Amino acid sequence: MKIAVDAMGGDFAPKEIVTGSVAAAKKYGCSVVLVGDEPQIREVLDTLPGWDKLDISIHHTTEIIGMGEHPAKAVMRKKDASVVVATRLVSEGECDAVLSAGSTGAAVTAAQFILKRIKGIDRPSIATPMPSPEGTTLLMDSGANVDCKPRHLMQSAMMGSVYAKYVLGIENPRVGLLNIGEEETKGNEQARTTYPLLKQMKTINFLGNAEGRDIPKGTFDVVVCDGFVGNVVLKFGEGLAKTIIGLLKEAVKEGGLRAKLGALLLMPACKKLARRLDVEENGGAPLLGVDGCCIIAHGSSSAKSIKSAIGMADGYVKGDVLAHIEEAIMKEEILDDAALTGKSRNE
Amino acid sequence: MKIAVDAMGGDFAPKEIVTGSVAAAKKYGCSVVLVGDEPQIREVLDTLPGWDKLDISIHHTTEIIGMGEHPAKAVMRKKDASVVVATRLVSEGECDAVLSAGSTGAAVTAAQFILKRIKGIDRPSIATPMPSPEGTTLLMDSGANVDCKPRHLMQSAMMGSVYAKYVLGIENPRVGLLNIGEEETKGNEQARTTYPLLKQMKTINFLGNAEGRDIPKGTFDVVVCDGFVGNVVLKFGEGLAKTIIGLLKEAVKEGGLRAKLGALLLMPACKKLARRLDVEENGGAPLLGVDGCCIIAHGSSSAKSIKSAIGMADGYVKGDVLAHIEEAIMKEEILDDAALTGKSRNE
Repeated sequence: MKIAVDAMGGDFAPKEIVTGSVAAAKKYGCSVVLVGDEPQIREVLDTLPGWDKLDISIHHTTEIIGMGEHPAKAVMRKKDASVVVATRLVSEGECDAVLSAGSTGAAVTAAQFILKRIKGIDRPSIATPMPSPEGTTLLMDSGANVDCKPRHLMQSAMMGSVYAKYVLGIENPRVGLLNIGEEETKGNEQARTTYPLLKQMKTINFLGNAEGRDIPKGTFDVVVCDGFVGNVVLKFGEGLAKTIIGLLKEAVKEGGLRAKLGALLLMPACKKLARRLDVEENGGAPLLGVDGCCIIAHGSSSAKSIKSAIGMADGYVKGDVLAHIEEAIMKEEILDDAALTGKSRNE
Repeated sequence: MKIAVDAMGGDFAPKEIVTGSVAAAKKYGCSVVLVGDEPQIREVLDTLPGWDKLDISIHHTTEIIGMGEHPAKAVMRKKDASVVVATRLVSEGECDAVLSAGSTGAAVTAAQFILKRIKGIDRPSIATPMPSPEGTTLLMDSGANVDCKPRHLMQSAMMGSVYAKYVLGIENPRVGLLNIGEEETKGNEQARTTYPLLKQMKTINFLGNAEGRDIPKGTFDVVVCDGFVGNVVLKFGEGLAKTIIGLLKEAVKEGGLRAKLGALLLMPACKKLARRLDVEENGGAPLLGVDGCCIIAHGSSSAKSIKSAIGMADGYVKGDVLAHIEEAIMKEEILDDAALTGKSRNE
């Protein structure tokens, strides 16, 4: 696998991005093209002994898209932005995947404009893996689309199932629709109209409504929701975890020697737990529905998260996700039925 | 204050409900009317020495509304259900507040049918206090309304502000609109159309968009959202906290003597933290917008949570929430402007 990495995107770019890429090239034996400002990239590489023995190259670009910029405008205007060029390397067949930890909006827009959508998919979705005691719950979508129509959620459910099966290795992924009650008649209009349609689908194992608590519990492998709700949940979860850890640290500090000793003794057990939850291993989220592999990494990505996000791209390519999504679209004729919602696909 | 308590509602009714009510009568010096099956209530009371010295009475009822029942149908048919009778005691001026830990749908429906809405409010909202390091973030609404129109969110913002000011004692409550980005133009249609309207309001201190992470962080005192999103967030948070605690316990168990000793030493610091976060003290959530004090308690309420929920009713009554909401409605002529959304109030 050959991956184009946006070396300039992310809070700790290019240092953490380049360092993580080198670690991934070593671990997965993949080729990495570092896209961005050559002098800056080279400066980081020079601190990493042995990188020149790996299959790593630099593709120099002159522009950067910042976090505050309007995604569509920036992608249209900055033809030489690192994320734009990295995405183009995939569309031109030069690379198999693109990874960016920069502006999510810019990465999604670049993927939509340059890679284009898969035929039969109206909107791509960000599939975020959330750790649970059972393994991973895939949150579909976590922010690419808002105000989804039922068919968008159907497409999300189908793509999430494919990813869970062929990349996460879950045989018959349990799909749930995020809602505020278990009964079919519960929820907002979006959920109530989507439920019966998910029930009719052939390519997914739909088990009914999922409630908020089911996400951390791991009751479902794929939880389908509007990107507005998914994004709020994702950021709330991140914030809650950060707040709890911060408060615990403070409590230990204030608790004196006794609490400090306790924390020290507990550390190995907690570290084991963190490893089990793969907290730092869930570095990226694939953008499903575009015609190419695009991995969105967290803005605050460390080298470790970048490494794991490149591993994710490797899994995506090896799992042949694109072909399996196309296959599912063929089987799921229902997605092509304009009569489904009484509206045409392109409205 | 005289409170009507639905003694039959909740996973641990009537035992925990009655026990918590007695503790509250002792602590707050309030009168409690226990509404439900007299023999069962009396059986619990008999285990609580000294209850007969307090201002506690029993109002016998013969029916119960179960968790699985259709709220509206059940409230209409079961005229002698404990939650219906308890709510009626408030509408008849017999009591100042009603509390139920039973079906939330039934309690909300009973309040809407029997207490009626405050004039000027289209839909009541559940105001759930979420603990944060800064104090409390009020989540408005956490499940009473879905598919909200902008004016519903405006009313929520206004009522939440009143509650935060007059009950929680926050001078100029910081109000945020839950969204997926900071900019005014971000989000779904609901958020984008609501933002400029919140900005125009006179009775709230609107600071802009809140993101998911702002809820646990405590960046805002009142976070306004559609009940669908609020309910998902609330249940997700509960589930996440439960999952983390469960996993930590497991890790301690598997970590052997060393981890057990560590946990033991850490316990006092953690208990202090739990008290600071008021975890068990946030037993209820007021239903704002109905013409009377109605407190919704969690289905799994313990005696301790019921006690704190009754304390909440006490604060609501003493804070004169109803009068202050009516006052704010008068000031906020904007809420009465049908031209606001181009639609009439009753559509």
